[in-house]
Amino acid sequence: MTPAQHDAIEVIIAKRGGAALTDSQIDWVIDAYTRGVVADEQMSALAMAILLNGMTRPEIARWTAAMIASGERMAFDGLPLPTADKHSTGGVGDKITLPLAPLVAACGVAVPQLSGRGLGHTGGTLDKLESIPGWRATLSNDEMFAQLRDVGAVICAAGDGLAPADKKLYALRDVTGTVEAIPLIASSIMSKKIAEGTGSLVLDVKVGTGAFMKTLADAQELARTMVDLGTDAGVTTVALLTDMSTPLGLTAGNAIEVAESVEVLAGGGPADVVELTLALAREMLRGAGREHVDPADVLASGKAMDVWNAMIRAQGGDPVAALPVARESHVVAAPSSGVLTGLDAMAVGLAAWRLGAGRARKEDPVQAGAGVVWHARPGDTVTAGQPLLTLLTDDESRFERALASLDGGYDIAPTGTAFEPTPLLLDRIG
Amino acid sequence: MTPAQHDAIEVIIAKRGGAALTDSQIDWVIDAYTRGVVADEQMSALAMAILLNGMTRPEIARWTAAMIASGERMAFDGLPLPTADKHSTGGVGDKITLPLAPLVAACGVAVPQLSGRGLGHTGGTLDKLESIPGWRATLSNDEMFAQLRDVGAVICAAGDGLAPADKKLYALRDVTGTVEAIPLIASSIMSKKIAEGTGSLVLDVKVGTGAFMKTLADAQELARTMVDLGTDAGVTTVALLTDMSTPLGLTAGNAIEVAESVEVLAGGGPADVVELTLALAREMLRGAGREHVDPADVLASGKAMDVWNAMIRAQGGDPVAALPVARESHVVAAPSSGVLTGLDAMAVGLAAWRLGAGRARKEDPVQAGAGVVWHARPGDTVTAGQPLLTLLTDDESRFERALASLDGGYDIAPTGTAFEPTPLLLDRIG
Repeated sequence: MTPAQHDAIEVIIAKRGGAALTDSQIDWVIDAYTRGVVADEQMSALAMAILLNGMTRPEIARWTAAMIASGERMAFDGLPLPTADKHSTGGVGDKITLPLAPLVAACGVAVPQLSGRGLGHTGGTLDKLESIPGWRATLSNDEMFAQLRDVGAVICAAGDGLAPADKKLYALRDVTGTVEAIPLIASSIMSKKIAEGTGSLVLDVKVGTGAFMKTLADAQELARTMVDLGTDAGVTTVALLTDMSTPLGLTAGNAIEVAESVEVLAGGGPADVVELTLALAREMLRGAGREHVDPADVLASGKAMDVWNAMIRAQGGDPVAALPVARESHVVAAPSSGVLTGLDAMAVGLAAWRLGAGRARKEDPVQAGAGVVWHARPGDTVTAGQPLLTLLTDDESRFERALASLDGGYDIAPTGTAFEPTPLLLDRIG
Repeated sequence: MTPAQHDAIEVIIAKRGGAALTDSQIDWVIDAYTRGVVADEQMSALAMAILLNGMTRPEIARWTAAMIASGERMAFDGLPLPTADKHSTGGVGDKITLPLAPLVAACGVAVPQLSGRGLGHTGGTLDKLESIPGWRATLSNDEMFAQLRDVGAVICAAGDGLAPADKKLYALRDVTGTVEAIPLIASSIMSKKIAEGTGSLVLDVKVGTGAFMKTLADAQELARTMVDLGTDAGVTTVALLTDMSTPLGLTAGNAIEVAESVEVLAGGGPADVVELTLALAREMLRGAGREHVDPADVLASGKAMDVWNAMIRAQGGDPVAALPVARESHVVAAPSSGVLTGLDAMAVGLAAWRLGAGRARKEDPVQAGAGVVWHARPGDTVTAGQPLLTLLTDDESRFERALASLDGGYDIAPTGTAFEPTPLLLDRIG
């Protein structure tokens, strides 16, 4: 089908004037942009007009559908199990996918988890898993399907065939100051998830200093938009809004987050990581019609760890090999005694990034061993001089800028100061 | 001087959020865009943010100054005469520069008129003059200066050295739906006029269907912005707001507009062309301190025609050679008898463009003989069957689309219908 002919300037001027784009205009502009007929400088002007003037729900749905139509669609109809996927909007120390995917698979739901690499201060699931010796992120569609059938869980890189329009548009938005448009964020995420073919989807929408969405209201709008898109496309979709003013767990990096995830699968690990893993697992099981299974029981049984080991092995990794360790470390001591009342997610995320755990450009490598470990969480009592943070990197010249980003990133109040923890789960939409 | 370092995304996000850009941000972004450090897709996103969020008066002034600083500045201090220039925002049948420049020069004021070619439905002064056999638009700065000194008037192409940032930005805006931003229109026009070095400037801001500005309010805002920019830069600047709901004179094209202009210089020509030429001449003389000279007397004396002939000869043209004539013509007869109550400037402009008088892309050629002649003006009585319009082109396949654009472009009311003409001069700002 050849889409009706339009003109880039006509589409830009319509959105510039606050009009809703027609289905035909949307289909044309996404297709023409994918083919290079609409130029980058035209699409960035349109993206800015969308950011400032917004889009209606039908426009966002059509925009998402057009991005899906730009590439292939996968389907898991041939699997004997229901499917469920999870997407996080990105946070600091957010390793939840690692214990979650094998846990849900151990509960009898197949988890096709297409993930990405990190950019900026938020980590990437694939970067974390690539610290496991031998593990590879790239699978063919056939390999992915076979692993889902045999192991029940797969975490791998999204192929280039899925929503290529989104891939091109995302790279453009990244350099043109047009990332923070809720219609474009929502359609970017949901086009890939719908094209991936999952039967149900749980969205973990992060809120706070370390998240993309700084306020609950913005996060609610994004969550509502994404839930609507998924629902309209026939994917059972729910969103949990979770706190990202404090980083998750006790580590932010790559290998150190794998180690923390394995602790959770072994029945230990930080309480917040366990809490969020179980909350998301319950939502995924509900979406897949398996709400009668209690993931806490399955986690305690060790079955999730079995799936983890099988999942890592299926992708060439050695789940029992020693993980890479950073060559250099630097300890930040608590400057005073008292109660740790705050540890800022953005400060920790920037520090981990500057230590080498993340990348500034998508072609940069990351260090497997780099990152930040914190030895106390908000609410904990600390003693002056005790280790508060450990910074890890292969390159000691990185400590200075990492320490600068941590300046003012934590607060210690006098012993006895009342501390009111921020709840981890803030809202549920779906 | 190296401008302070900024980042394209930082500047875009500031304007996206409605902030006023700092002087340093403006200097940096214009310089970096001229050098190719800021990419087209970043500048178009910024242009859209400026279009939707606006700019303060100090921002527009700085933006204009930065565009001037991107290239060379001319100066006419060495001339024994004061200088005055005129700029029209573009209309249909707007040949006023042709009689005006020699007329003002004949009144003792030097007229350095850097002009452009037409794009879209509005004609270009250089395109019109290029229909004169031998005439050339391109002069060196030295040739321009010598002609101003010896003849008193020069109409030529702006050199590439003048405000190159504007040249690049204008081409970008043209393809990204970001032309209609008053701060960008004003700074584009004024950067070239200020860099050109004229001592005084009269702006002819067109209002109506055939103009860029469709409403008086928009035209007033644009005029006020440009007058402020000129005044702040030390150029005596005034704006006349003039009607462009009806095309000027009786012709829209290239050679046919030259012929009409020569009629005006010979003491004849359509009344509206004469009226506007004299009104603009009076403003230019006032700006140059020569308000005691009456241009109507000078026009009647034949001195303006002498300057015209010298001006055309100085640029290689033969002012008495026959002008090119279109190979094909098509007459549109009046469908009924009565009073012509309307002739739409946009309809006529589109028809002339489609007949070959204008171009769709800047590299396209134009036809010297193409255009539209109308045989009645609003208020005139017409008889059914009399010639109402004559369409001219070298290529008869163009008639069909030209006729389509004229469909509904004129109204004939029953004889005796009261007709209230739109005044030509709508406002004066300065």
